[in-house]
Amino acid sequence: MSAGLHESMDAVVLEDYGGAPSVRSVPVPRPGPGEVLVRMAAAPINPSDLAFLRGVYAYEKPLPAVPGIEGSGTVVGAGAGLMPRFLLGRRVACSSSITGGGTWAEYMVTSASLCVPLDGRVSFEQGATLLVNPLTALALTDAAKKGGHAAIITSAAASSLGRMILRLCLRDGLPIICVVRRHEQVELLRGLGAEHVLDTTQSDFETRLTSLAGTLNASLVLDGVAGEMTGTLLAACPAGATAIVYSDLSQQPCVVDSRRFFFERKRIRGFYLADWAAEKNVVQALLLARRAQRLIGSALQTTIRQRLPLSAVAEARALYEDDMTAGKVLLVADRRT
Amino acid sequence: MSAGLHESMDAVVLEDYGGAPSVRSVPVPRPGPGEVLVRMAAAPINPSDLAFLRGVYAYEKPLPAVPGIEGSGTVVGAGAGLMPRFLLGRRVACSSSITGGGTWAEYMVTSASLCVPLDGRVSFEQGATLLVNPLTALALTDAAKKGGHAAIITSAAASSLGRMILRLCLRDGLPIICVVRRHEQVELLRGLGAEHVLDTTQSDFETRLTSLAGTLNASLVLDGVAGEMTGTLLAACPAGATAIVYSDLSQQPCVVDSRRFFFERKRIRGFYLADWAAEKNVVQALLLARRAQRLIGSALQTTIRQRLPLSAVAEARALYEDDMTAGKVLLVADRRT
Repeated sequence: MSAGLHESMDAVVLEDYGGAPSVRSVPVPRPGPGEVLVRMAAAPINPSDLAFLRGVYAYEKPLPAVPGIEGSGTVVGAGAGLMPRFLLGRRVACSSSITGGGTWAEYMVTSASLCVPLDGRVSFEQGATLLVNPLTALALTDAAKKGGHAAIITSAAASSLGRMILRLCLRDGLPIICVVRRHEQVELLRGLGAEHVLDTTQSDFETRLTSLAGTLNASLVLDGVAGEMTGTLLAACPAGATAIVYSDLSQQPCVVDSRRFFFERKRIRGFYLADWAAEKNVVQALLLARRAQRLIGSALQTTIRQRLPLSAVAEARALYEDDMTAGKVLLVADRRT
Repeated sequence: MSAGLHESMDAVVLEDYGGAPSVRSVPVPRPGPGEVLVRMAAAPINPSDLAFLRGVYAYEKPLPAVPGIEGSGTVVGAGAGLMPRFLLGRRVACSSSITGGGTWAEYMVTSASLCVPLDGRVSFEQGATLLVNPLTALALTDAAKKGGHAAIITSAAASSLGRMILRLCLRDGLPIICVVRRHEQVELLRGLGAEHVLDTTQSDFETRLTSLAGTLNASLVLDGVAGEMTGTLLAACPAGATAIVYSDLSQQPCVVDSRRFFFERKRIRGFYLADWAAEKNVVQALLLARRAQRLIGSALQTTIRQRLPLSAVAEARALYEDDMTAGKVLLVADRRT
């Protein structure tokens, strides 16, 4: 442990799932073996954080709990172990552990394996959103390429993640059909270079999507919406297509005509970053983090809409939920020193 | 062509999808190259036939069309080719082709590749249901074994197909959880030797299913019901489970919490016998047909509930739809010679 740390810190604290979190003063946590203490610089609000607040994320933590799945900061304390000592003093992108607190705080203890050293050219703000969306975008487009798909369809195409997938596809020359749910998002994506953008509110949406998916042989759906969307997109694809569901922005269960499965050989599976990351070893993880950082100023860029202090968490959340397309809202620690 | 055939025959004819078929006199079809003419002996009504009548099967035929997907009979005419000549005069189990007429008629022309010679000990009645259910049951239990699943869950477990799967699992020592939708079906399956039978109308159904699926590590669902059932069964399975949807007796789309896919690594795919069969060569197909016929008196036995002439097709359909568990209803050609 490094000396001179405060005994207490401000942190966003969730008292009950489904309720509103608030800022409280809590003890600064201490890192155990294999863990580090990160002085947080910035942390975004992601859809997965909103799911955590509602109690429908992959896991529930015992309450009260500090939310926040990813962020960036400086490692200011290290528990026993090679990796913690290696990270001490470094600027990192970091993710919270299942057993510890979250990133919406002045300090966080997490596993050293959930931290990635930031390159000098990557700012704390960029680094705060390095792990969730950029790695998911890389993993999903890698899956599209490895699966030999001629073209893909994305839902939630105007989201931060959707735009990253679009830019990676444009860079790699992989045809992509972007599906959005509001008319103004069409122009936004065209401005990024998208050739095929379809708006679900158009009356001929399904006809056009089916025609385009057939022409391009779009055999992979990357679906972040779920609900009726999963079935609509799979219906439009040629026989044999796969849908990878990675999020449920609609907060509705997937609804799919069963004949897609047995008569059209279509399939559904999921993608969860933590499972994907768990399959990588340390070297693979570092290489991936480097690849993501190289692209963070271009294909994997995140639009930052606003920076707010931890104490404004309610305002930050409302702002983000009101319009997720407008960019990320970052929570920034109110440093007292 | 053999001589002495009638010019016209009785056949069940469908005039419009969703309507009621009726018996009419139509010309006896003539086999082309690679085809045979089968004098039909018996043909069952299967769920897939009901789907065809409603216009929601894998394909629609130009109307008017003769329904009937499988049956048995004697090859009385052969078009050009080795296989047709080999089959001439033989008793066969047969399936209708996409381009030709169906089995609910006195005669049917079909591809020689859709006919399987019947062993001497297999009756026309047994042979009439040889292809659809027994081969599906063999294919699905083979998938369970090849997938290394410790145990499986079946919906529609009291159906003809469900009972075949149960008996194959009992024979092979593969633990199986049978899910039924009526209380009286519990005793029926226990009488066949089933150890785990759960009734969806029980108030603690989901709790018991989840507990049992966890204990047995049931990682494969064979679902013939679709609708909410798919999601309920997948929810009960341990993480990583797969659902194979092969039918939709509920006539409802599959509804599945999207978090099953991304947080629990669960998957859905389909099974369609015609696709599965298309991957087999002639030798594999004959070996499979032989395997099915060896088991047709035991594990792959079909309960025949009633035999009715073609002219009673409306009655036969009503009887079957009223209680699919009670056994198959066979349509038998009204021979005029």
